[in-house]
Amino acid sequence: MKNIDLLGFIAATLTTIAFVPQLIKTWQTKSAGDVSFLMLLTFCTGVFLWLLYGIFIQSWPVIAANFLTLIFNLLILSLKIRYE
Amino acid sequence: MKNIDLLGFIAATLTTIAFVPQLIKTWQTKSAGDVSFLMLLTFCTGVFLWLLYGIFIQSWPVIAANFLTLIFNLLILSLKIRYE
Repeated sequence: MKNIDLLGFIAATLTTIAFVPQLIKTWQTKSAGDVSFLMLLTFCTGVFLWLLYGIFIQSWPVIAANFLTLIFNLLILSLKIRYE
Repeated sequence: MKNIDLLGFIAATLTTIAFVPQLIKTWQTKSAGDVSFLMLLTFCTGVFLWLLYGIFIQSWPVIAANFLTLIFNLLILSLKIRYE
């Protein structure tokens, strides 16, 4: 793996797993009042379009990273709706 | 602009501007207790690496989108630290 590919891989991993602590925190505290609904909605829509983009250009890293990011953020969004 | 480029452009715009509502909400409520510190830290680190990646591959869309996303998230992070 070239250094530049490794950099992209680490970047994609971090921006994907970043949402796991938020998911766990929201699950544990049963509170997401400070988390913006509009942010989650806009971000999920954008990540879904990134996923479509990845499918069109047949890029597995783009597909995998955005699929997981979408799942994590949809779970955070559903918890926020549930706890409000 | 090809359709696939337009899709990527819309996706990048949405995942960048998504953080503006969170920034405004945190600024107005002066509260970010429900927002995970570890999420912000991990996400900012990942976006910074995406920015470096964009500079290395000389891709202006990657640079611009990640530069703005980094600024918005660093502002949210600094507000969270300030209000706690």
